[in-house]
Amino acid sequence: MFYHKKQLQYFKPPEKPDALYAKKIQELIGGTFGEMTVMMQYLFQGWNCRGPAKYRDLLLDTGTEEIGHVEMLATMIAHLLDKAPLSVQEEGAADRLVGAVMGGSNVRDEIMAAAMNPQHSIVSGLGAMPSDSVGFPWNGRFIVSSGNLLADFRSNLHAESQGRLQAVRMYEMSDDPGVKDTLSFMIARDTMHQNQWIAAIKDLEDSGLETSPVPSSFPLELEKREFAYQFWSHSDGTESAEGRWAKGESMDGKGQFEYIANPQPLGPEPTPPPAEPKLHGTPGFEKAKHT
Amino acid sequence: MFYHKKQLQYFKPPEKPDALYAKKIQELIGGTFGEMTVMMQYLFQGWNCRGPAKYRDLLLDTGTEEIGHVEMLATMIAHLLDKAPLSVQEEGAADRLVGAVMGGSNVRDEIMAAAMNPQHSIVSGLGAMPSDSVGFPWNGRFIVSSGNLLADFRSNLHAESQGRLQAVRMYEMSDDPGVKDTLSFMIARDTMHQNQWIAAIKDLEDSGLETSPVPSSFPLELEKREFAYQFWSHSDGTESAEGRWAKGESMDGKGQFEYIANPQPLGPEPTPPPAEPKLHGTPGFEKAKHT
Amino acid sequence: MFYHKKQLQYFKPPEKPDALYAKKIQELIGGTFGEMTVMMQYLFQGWNCRGPAKYRDLLLDTGTEEIGHVEMLATMIAHLLDKAPLSVQEEGAADRLVGAVMGGSNVRDEIMAAAMNPQHSIVSGLGAMPSDSVGFPWNGRFIVSSGNLLADFRSNLHAESQGRLQAVRMYEMSDDPGVKDTLSFMIARDTMHQNQWIAAIKDLEDSGLETSPVPSSFPLELEKREFAYQFWSHSDGTESAEGRWAKGESMDGKGQFEYIANPQPLGPEPTPPPAEPKLHGTPGFEKAKHT
Amino acid sequence: MFYHKKQLQYFKPPEKPDALYAKKIQELIGGTFGEMTVMMQYLFQGWNCRGPAKYRDLLLDTGTEEIGHVEMLATMIAHLLDKAPLSVQEEGAADRLVGAVMGGSNVRDEIMAAAMNPQHSIVSGLGAMPSDSVGFPWNGRFIVSSGNLLADFRSNLHAESQGRLQAVRMYEMSDDPGVKDTLSFMIARDTMHQNQWIAAIKDLEDSGLETSPVPSSFPLELEKREFAYQFWSHSDGTESAEGRWAKGESMDGKGQFEYIANPQPLGPEPTPPPAEPKLHGTPGFEKAKHT
Amino acid sequence: MFYHKKQLQYFKPPEKPDALYAKKIQELIGGTFGEMTVMMQYLFQGWNCRGPAKYRDLLLDTGTEEIGHVEMLATMIAHLLDKAPLSVQEEGAADRLVGAVMGGSNVRDEIMAAAMNPQHSIVSGLGAMPSDSVGFPWNGRFIVSSGNLLADFRSNLHAESQGRLQAVRMYEMSDDPGVKDTLSFMIARDTMHQNQWIAAIKDLEDSGLETSPVPSSFPLELEKREFAYQFWSHSDGTESAEGRWAKGESMDGKGQFEYIANPQPLGPEPTPPPAEPKLHGTPGFEKAKHT
Amino acid sequence: MFYHKKQLQYFKPPEKPDALYAKKIQELIGGTFGEMTVMMQYLFQGWNCRGPAKYRDLLLDTGTEEIGHVEMLATMIAHLLDKAPLSVQEEGAADRLVGAVMGGSNVRDEIMAAAMNPQHSIVSGLGAMPSDSVGFPWNGRFIVSSGNLLADFRSNLHAESQGRLQAVRMYEMSDDPGVKDTLSFMIARDTMHQNQWIAAIKDLEDSGLETSPVPSSFPLELEKREFAYQFWSHSDGTESAEGRWAKGESMDGKGQFEYIANPQPLGPEPTPPPAEPKLHGTPGFEKAKHT
Repeated sequence: MFYHKKQLQYFKPPEKPDALYAKKIQELIGGTFGEMTVMMQYLFQGWNCRGPAKYRDLLLDTGTEEIGHVEMLATMIAHLLDKAPLSVQEEGAADRLVGAVMGGSNVRDEIMAAAMNPQHSIVSGLGAMPSDSVGFPWNGRFIVSSGNLLADFRSNLHAESQGRLQAVRMYEMSDDPGVKDTLSFMIARDTMHQNQWIAAIKDLEDSGLETSPVPSSFPLELEKREFAYQFWSHSDGTESAEGRWAKGESMDGKGQFEYIANPQPLGPEPTPPPAEPKLHGTPGFEKAKHT
Repeated sequence: MFYHKKQLQYFKPPEKPDALYAKKIQELIGGTFGEMTVMMQYLFQGWNCRGPAKYRDLLLDTGTEEIGHVEMLATMIAHLLDKAPLSVQEEGAADRLVGAVMGGSNVRDEIMAAAMNPQHSIVSGLGAMPSDSVGFPWNGRFIVSSGNLLADFRSNLHAESQGRLQAVRMYEMSDDPGVKDTLSFMIARDTMHQNQWIAAIKDLEDSGLETSPVPSSFPLELEKREFAYQFWSHSDGTESAEGRWAKGESMDGKGQFEYIANPQPLGPEPTPPPAEPKLHGTPGFEKAKHT
Repeated sequence: MFYHKKQLQYFKPPEKPDALYAKKIQELIGGTFGEMTVMMQYLFQGWNCRGPAKYRDLLLDTGTEEIGHVEMLATMIAHLLDKAPLSVQEEGAADRLVGAVMGGSNVRDEIMAAAMNPQHSIVSGLGAMPSDSVGFPWNGRFIVSSGNLLADFRSNLHAESQGRLQAVRMYEMSDDPGVKDTLSFMIARDTMHQNQWIAAIKDLEDSGLETSPVPSSFPLELEKREFAYQFWSHSDGTESAEGRWAKGESMDGKGQFEYIANPQPLGPEPTPPPAEPKLHGTPGFEKAKHT
Repeated sequence: MFYHKKQLQYFKPPEKPDALYAKKIQELIGGTFGEMTVMMQYLFQGWNCRGPAKYRDLLLDTGTEEIGHVEMLATMIAHLLDKAPLSVQEEGAADRLVGAVMGGSNVRDEIMAAAMNPQHSIVSGLGAMPSDSVGFPWNGRFIVSSGNLLADFRSNLHAESQGRLQAVRMYEMSDDPGVKDTLSFMIARDTMHQNQWIAAIKDLEDSGLETSPVPSSFPLELEKREFAYQFWSHSDGTESAEGRWAKGESMDGKGQFEYIANPQPLGPEPTPPPAEPKLHGTPGFEKAKHT
Repeated sequence: MFYHKKQLQYFKPPEKPDALYAKKIQELIGGTFGEMTVMMQYLFQGWNCRGPAKYRDLLLDTGTEEIGHVEMLATMIAHLLDKAPLSVQEEGAADRLVGAVMGGSNVRDEIMAAAMNPQHSIVSGLGAMPSDSVGFPWNGRFIVSSGNLLADFRSNLHAESQGRLQAVRMYEMSDDPGVKDTLSFMIARDTMHQNQWIAAIKDLEDSGLETSPVPSSFPLELEKREFAYQFWSHSDGTESAEGRWAKGESMDGKGQFEYIANPQPLGPEPTPPPAEPKLHGTPGFEKAKHT
Repeated sequence: MFYHKKQLQYFKPPEKPDALYAKKIQELIGGTFGEMTVMMQYLFQGWNCRGPAKYRDLLLDTGTEEIGHVEMLATMIAHLLDKAPLSVQEEGAADRLVGAVMGGSNVRDEIMAAAMNPQHSIVSGLGAMPSDSVGFPWNGRFIVSSGNLLADFRSNLHAESQGRLQAVRMYEMSDDPGVKDTLSFMIARDTMHQNQWIAAIKDLEDSGLETSPVPSSFPLELEKREFAYQFWSHSDGTESAEGRWAKGESMDGKGQFEYIANPQPLGPEPTPPPAEPKLHGTPGFEKAKHT
């Protein structure tokens, strides 16, 4: 069960509206690695967790924090969309350009009106939306909750890596002190969350519940071990032979990497079964009959 | 530029058709972590790679291998769908049950006809589809290619973890020797690929090009460092205090974890700007006027 | 900013697992009118609200409650999926049927294994997913937050109407006392929420901030008033003349309903502009030239 | 069965092309509350209607009218896209700006070319598309047809409220007399349709077939009545206590609203069932074994 | 502008309900090549048509007919879903099986309840939905309207080919006389529509407005003619050399087919530009600096 | 199994970056008729092919070529996005305009920054994405593989027609010699592929395996032949009587076209079955009872 406090976890308002930046920062709300993703991903992982209580609590604590991150960004978007220019007007364009040269331009308004997400005016009335920076809606396939905590913690680490990368890119693309201040808080939280999931992976591996390769409860002798440490080079160069993955002990400590420079097929050419007459697919040279 | 050999990388045909299993194994082709995902993810990462050539080659080699994995599974599905029962028939149900008791049942056929993916008969003519196990289509939002290799290698490690987990689950749900043999090859390749991405992460970190937190090229002093190692407990228990993430040196070696048991808001209550009259949203108690 | 308590708002566990019912009840989590929809809809409406504080608080209170409803249903699904039968086995079908007649059937298990959502085993490891009853993911286009509170409260009333209808249908399709008990709580909350949004509509209309037609701040003289109360019958019967909408004072009190039995076009036949040569569309009988 | 007349229900062509406006007005065709939505929603509700014939006829009449609204907007878009500027050219930008100052600017053309929906040139050849203002396709989840007419009429009222709001916003964002004239017809029809669905709700409630709460055929004693009129405040303020929903008789006339200021969980902490070994999820501290 | 007649274009009701068949036949309503696709495709092509009036009329006539095909199938689904079994009940399964042997089985009901689309009960109340046979919603990306009539008529021919194929498959999977009779009408209409689009292609080519290759208004000398008739064999076999496409005059009469057995790259190895420091992608071996 | 060569099939780099053009040309990668579509469509058709080996080889050869087309376009996008302007800056707009008049404008940069796909900076780090020109992701419903080769070859012909049309439109919208050169190669390949599929259709029809109407293995006497060659005019004009489809021998040579000027319904008015009480839909005037 959940509760809400009216104050935001952290927030500095933007100094100036910027409808284009509002469109872009939707990526951090509703994009593949936006706050809606980590919020829903951690909550679902927590609700579905059958592992030790400390992991369940970890997941639900962090998921609950992330709801507040969506809230912070939604608030920021409302400010960025304030007084958004709503249309591009033809009349007097030349006049206005003359005016611009004289010191009072609104060409930038025109550009803004042209660039902003039209749904911010037509659909949401200058409010945030559950969509990304091109207006594509957030959806449930963005999250993963598998029941295997090592697989999921790796997913969480990856999500926070992409998330911090995107927040940093947004930071670089702004020169508004309010925006930058708020983002510098969120970037710091992403630093924590990257660290946290690395720590959780270590904690889990130390517990012996899961190790590499995931899932570790599957008996290794059931996989074809002879192919479990080979790198197959499917192209005509050998640059890929130069990395750590091409030689030496494997990272799970259970094998030796091997580089296969000219891999050949191990299987046969496919022999598909005959076409089913009732489905009227095209058969081989013997013509199908209706039955 | 790409080339094709007609033989499969590896393959044992199923011993028996099984339309329900064909429906399920679509998850490994077109699901969030199916072979289409890793194929397209590695190819796009390779095509977009601006880092050292060995990483580009690594990505394209592996992406090219994965095209062949889609091919293997598509071939398997054709065999699994062979002679699929296409309808549930009402006539003589009781008779057939009697027959069943006598030793010649087709109740299982009825169940199969009811359970199979209807698009396998209506749309694809007993062929594989670019969809998951519930028929939802694979889509481009399933992949990530960010230009930051550490972020992306973490994504690849996560994808191979979920992928091997799902392949193992499919292995457990089959008792067909051909299916199990083929899957045991694919599971082994997933073992390699998990190892490979762990190795690539290490290789990249050792190169000094990227470290934690991602992106490492962003100056840490620009984030609010005081919040970069705090765990905020947003719930009423303290189980989450027991993990590695709650105390000790942070995993990036640049801070100390701290546990905040009762976190309080640092920001103000939001004060949204007034409604824009031209958009006819509902204003505060002062009524909006049309302009 | 949000907080979590570990106990559920209300809950009785199911008495028995039922994987098919688990698949169905996903509709109440991730369907068009599931709890994720009302949760995200009320939160976004609250975050975007520029109207009086009591409406903002109303929206955020209810949105926060709904997060807990997703939690309740996710917990229920974990129980319903416990010990789910994971495969349909061919061997001994006739024997098992004989056994069934003798009193120990597992035909129902076969049916269950065939009917369950395959992603519940392959993807989520017997956990809830952010999807509906056919596995289609929840997405952001399911919600509306327009900035106009009367439009949005009407949306909320509609969502709770569809939501209670679907919860009632799920209630009717179960005979499990735990499921029915939990649903009877959720149905009661839906009763409250329907009442609440009717009350909020009345409260808002009484405030004078919005009335019918929405948006009321748009001057009526700017619409073509002569067509604002006509019912146009586009079919060949006249049953539609018998309703309240066909005669008498209009519901907004600003006109008289009128029934147009044989409506005719008021506009011209379209005359599309000529094809643009650079886009190589097919022109009229004068052939396009490349420029 | 359907028939077509070549003339439009109503239409004034735009005076000038405006490719950006064409992009925006796609929202009224293929957006969540565009004409495709009401068209398909009313048609499906009519086709699925098992209630009295007058409601079925009402639905099909209005659905048939709405097909013609898509037609009107598609025609408008063809005119708005006429002679759309197709590219932004680098050469001579400074020269052109000088020209602009002198009175003959094409900066606006550049902005237009940059802002227009690229699919309007590449995909549709300057024609309308079944997409919204950000190019996201209309889809079947946008509509509802539940078989319960009160639930559906509430949905229809909500759709017409959002629809008229969006049409009004588009009206405000244009200064083209043709566009405004055509929209003023469509806004008037939305006024009728809002009135019509309020009337249909009243007609249906007066018939006794459905009342609040929907569905009224579900016996109230089967829901937990003690929670059916309580407002739960999940946040730390009490502004939400000030509304009509917090006290007095409930809107269905069957209870009294009650305000719960500090709601507490009524359910237990979740106790998820143990992990299924065959699915290789992470178990509690007792390690899973492969079976 | 559109009109509706209450009678169906053609219809025979099913003799018996069949909830599984209802689920499958959704493919013909809302699938990629269902009636919603051809309806919306022809209407949009007609509305967007800038070519001769006879083609515009042809498109709108056929599009209007197709609305009625959705209507026919929606009506059929209502009948097929009549008295659908809504749940699988555990109690007495063995008893019921004994009963089955004695002549009164409801095992088929159980299978039906398990197999039916759950949204047919929960969401639509036993009505048709704008979705395909796996419940995926119809969407606007299913249709094409390009403004080039030869490209679009080829699309229409293809859609009717897939559509008739799917209708035939549904015919084969039914033994209900009413279903088969109705489908035999729809299959005949598909025969007409295939013939019609072949005729329209010929009519258009004879008019000289468009020929092969599409678009014919693009000057052939602007393409690299030396590669315009070569078949490149990207695999290791030569079966593909045996077809009409590998030798002889090209089908547009403007070249000679040529078979390239061992095609080699004509382009260079890619040399991506350096990483942009502000976006914090991973650079080559020279480490990126923050600016 | 697949192999990769590092050189591109063909490529000339753009002379200048152009972020807006990069956004547009995404349509040719991930749009409905982009290279991902033909690549995946031909590969799946090849993998699913049960017809003669020459068709299977044809499909896989061409599908393999198309992987390289995605590669070419991805490479082009990296160049087009080089040094993309990442933000619109407010300060000094008037000054810059003055500067522009003086000969050193960056207004075009502002427009570019506003127009570019924001995901190209935030998500992909200036790399290609598996999306179309409005950022909508490629998905599996874009392709068709039906098992019937004539239906599928017609689909392929249509896809190459739309594809060449779109490539030509992109050619017209560029004045960059590198872009135009690369596109002129791709347009030539589309010419080949249109010719190739026309040839394959002829080859297949000549083989006798499939003819019109598709599927030809369905006995014509099972369709209602009396409606198989009638054109039904559903509108009030007769322009559609003037085409080849309205009179003369049908294109399959098996009937005579007939023009029906005033088509009337052949079926009854629908009589939907009564509402199911357990689903609480609205019944006819006899009120439903809960059971």
